[in-house]
Amino acid sequence: RLRVREALGAREPAAALVTVQGWVRSVRSQKEVLFLHINDGSSLEHLQVVADPSLENRDLTFGSAVEVQGKLVRSPHRMQNVELQAETIRVVGPCDIWSFPLKMKERHPLEYMRQFPHLRCRNNTLGSLLRIRSEATAAIHSFFQNNGYVHIHTPIITSNDCEGAGELFQIEVSNEARQSAEKTHFFNVPAFLTVSGQLHLEVMAGAFTHVFTFGPTFRAENSQSRRHLAEFYMVEAELAFTESLQDIMQVMEDLFKTVTSTVLSKCPRDVELFQKYVAPAQKSDITHKLFFSSCRIPYSEAVEILKQASQTFTFKPEWGCDLQKEHEKYLVKHCGEVPVFVINYPYDLKPFYMRDNEDGPQHTVAAVDLLVPGIGELCGGSLREERLPFLESRLQRLGLADAYQWYLDLRKFGSVPHGGFGMGFERYLQYILGVDNIKDVIPFPRFSHSCLL
Amino acid sequence: RLRVREALGAREPAAALVTVQGWVRSVRSQKEVLFLHINDGSSLEHLQVVADPSLENRDLTFGSAVEVQGKLVRSPHRMQNVELQAETIRVVGPCDIWSFPLKMKERHPLEYMRQFPHLRCRNNTLGSLLRIRSEATAAIHSFFQNNGYVHIHTPIITSNDCEGAGELFQIEVSNEARQSAEKTHFFNVPAFLTVSGQLHLEVMAGAFTHVFTFGPTFRAENSQSRRHLAEFYMVEAELAFTESLQDIMQVMEDLFKTVTSTVLSKCPRDVELFQKYVAPAQKSDITHKLFFSSCRIPYSEAVEILKQASQTFTFKPEWGCDLQKEHEKYLVKHCGEVPVFVINYPYDLKPFYMRDNEDGPQHTVAAVDLLVPGIGELCGGSLREERLPFLESRLQRLGLADAYQWYLDLRKFGSVPHGGFGMGFERYLQYILGVDNIKDVIPFPRFSHSCLL
Repeated sequence: RLRVREALGAREPAAALVTVQGWVRSVRSQKEVLFLHINDGSSLEHLQVVADPSLENRDLTFGSAVEVQGKLVRSPHRMQNVELQAETIRVVGPCDIWSFPLKMKERHPLEYMRQFPHLRCRNNTLGSLLRIRSEATAAIHSFFQNNGYVHIHTPIITSNDCEGAGELFQIEVSNEARQSAEKTHFFNVPAFLTVSGQLHLEVMAGAFTHVFTFGPTFRAENSQSRRHLAEFYMVEAELAFTESLQDIMQVMEDLFKTVTSTVLSKCPRDVELFQKYVAPAQKSDITHKLFFSSCRIPYSEAVEILKQASQTFTFKPEWGCDLQKEHEKYLVKHCGEVPVFVINYPYDLKPFYMRDNEDGPQHTVAAVDLLVPGIGELCGGSLREERLPFLESRLQRLGLADAYQWYLDLRKFGSVPHGGFGMGFERYLQYILGVDNIKDVIPFPRFSHSCLL
Repeated sequence: RLRVREALGAREPAAALVTVQGWVRSVRSQKEVLFLHINDGSSLEHLQVVADPSLENRDLTFGSAVEVQGKLVRSPHRMQNVELQAETIRVVGPCDIWSFPLKMKERHPLEYMRQFPHLRCRNNTLGSLLRIRSEATAAIHSFFQNNGYVHIHTPIITSNDCEGAGELFQIEVSNEARQSAEKTHFFNVPAFLTVSGQLHLEVMAGAFTHVFTFGPTFRAENSQSRRHLAEFYMVEAELAFTESLQDIMQVMEDLFKTVTSTVLSKCPRDVELFQKYVAPAQKSDITHKLFFSSCRIPYSEAVEILKQASQTFTFKPEWGCDLQKEHEKYLVKHCGEVPVFVINYPYDLKPFYMRDNEDGPQHTVAAVDLLVPGIGELCGGSLREERLPFLESRLQRLGLADAYQWYLDLRKFGSVPHGGFGMGFERYLQYILGVDNIKDVIPFPRFSHSCLL
């Protein structure tokens, strides 16, 4: 029994009978010979099956599941090494091709496929995407493990709101919520879906020095745009004994390059599909994306660059205001359409946990965003405020000192300079593959008004 | 700059100055010499630092964060290879030892540590636990990747309820829920936290043949027992073109053995800690757990065994009733206190998706549970009903045919015999380490009335 990938990789056709199982991607019946293409998801490429026309039967259609027994022989065709000379073909499960939304040899648009979340993975593009996603997931785990990080499952349900953002999903027991008017919470306190594992990772960095997490995060943003999901994945890392943003940026860059190189070497054909058919307008190929800008632009300098731009912006660039999409785009172009770091953002723009740079009275904090072409922010990170008095007074001004007593504790008991970052996993996939809509890089997209399956 | 683990692993003491950063686990000041133990979470073992008493200062206490520069020298002590001869010691962050809940050289009970979810990872036992958890996580990913499985992020938020169990958490937008009386759902439909990724994995097995997921799952069980969490992790796998339970059991067993062997070889000292201090009553060590019972007991036979037992049970064993904890315990003992598979459960006890064995009119289904000593059910799996007419009529009887139209589709378009299983990750850790309370094997436990941090 061989997977299609193994069969295709066979160097020497062997005399032994092999069995291959999979789904029929094409049937071509000629007078003398019957050709099938079989795919089992182990690779983008199909295995060509050559059979006597007597083996044909009416259930042997596009989409049907088959088991083929035969011998691997050298293929006369230029495109493949081997083909399977069938001795028996068994239809394991027929396919009702009239109601099957996928059609043979048609290149269905991604928008069309989105209507069928339970079937779209059988399409070439989604198949390649999910194999790449799987390899990238493994590569992320390996990268951190090889560099001495401890993996932490940060909680999904949490009673605190890391970003102070407010676009939260709240959780209740489904029956209780309806039955009891008294509204007692299952957890005694209001509980939410996490927006970031950062604060929990900080707890763990205080014990293991280097930690990471890679899990789902949530935003209740009421948007159906091609940029938003209600449920998406984040890679987050936290490093104790780190005093410079430079160290954080280095890890971001190393992570990006290592994972991308791994994907390139593990799934070359899957990556190629995206370059050929999904993002053909992209001039640069994926290997180009391994080059980073060597410049780290301070936010203040970025604002000056924007102010001096000949371009007119919808949002006027102004010190103290957030960088808008159009600004990020300009900065990336300014640096030659390569990834670029922007550092040291205004104090008032950023959450309480970021470290005061002390370059003025609460002027800037040690924050960093990694901007990439076509996407904007791919990673965001910062040094964290490790000095108890600074953190305490900021939390007090915000009225959060009580809620974050435990977080202050981390600064009372062996506090160390530390920092970390998060990378949006779907944005990462969109960027390296040139996929326009974030709904096409996650197996089951959840967004406002949509939770299929 | 060396991690403690690297320093301890140094073969040859070198002349070069090294820097080690970490937290002080003990201070012993003698007239002639100052001894410190430094830990940075990279290993259970501390690095011994030997210094001139003049380097002592009042901030250099248990729990403080330090940076030590010096030379690695051969240690005169039996227990370690090297020690660090300090030239400078810098206290990076002091520790308020009077309010610090951990005390030097005290073995705090796990129950005590549970009160401090933000600090307990600095305790030896929890430190070892989380390092083992991290290695086991990596080993699970590697196991499946090495065996040709595609990793799938199955959704956390879902509109269907796999088990039909009903103990669900429901999700709403936090503000909307309060503001709007009209109760429109964010997703248009009621949405819940997943109880299993199985149905979504079945979708993917229809494209990739072998798939797995490893993520959080949820139960709104109103229990504070040592066996229940509201949020816990499951490893789930699904295999297409699988016609026998035997294949599913083989993967369960291989997974268990591979991951456990990896943990044993990667974290021998951490595992040892549990055998010495946490579960010393366990007669058998962890390597014993690598032996499985070779018998697969059919449910019907299990009921006979229970009926013939000399023991009296609280719940009388009866064909058609669920096996209770006490029954599982007896069966495991009956087989010699090793893991044992029970197969072919009554049709009416099990969810709609399990495959009818056709050994009577809806008599049994091809389900399997892996029972292990001290825990009970560690894994549960089944063959899935791949035959459209069987599945359709069962869903119709249950009034679920409309809701599961997409699931029926999977049987219309190239259906294949398939099956899969899930393993509770926390139960796995409890079992191999002999940890009594499930709250002690997860970084941040969530359960009824408790959602700390």
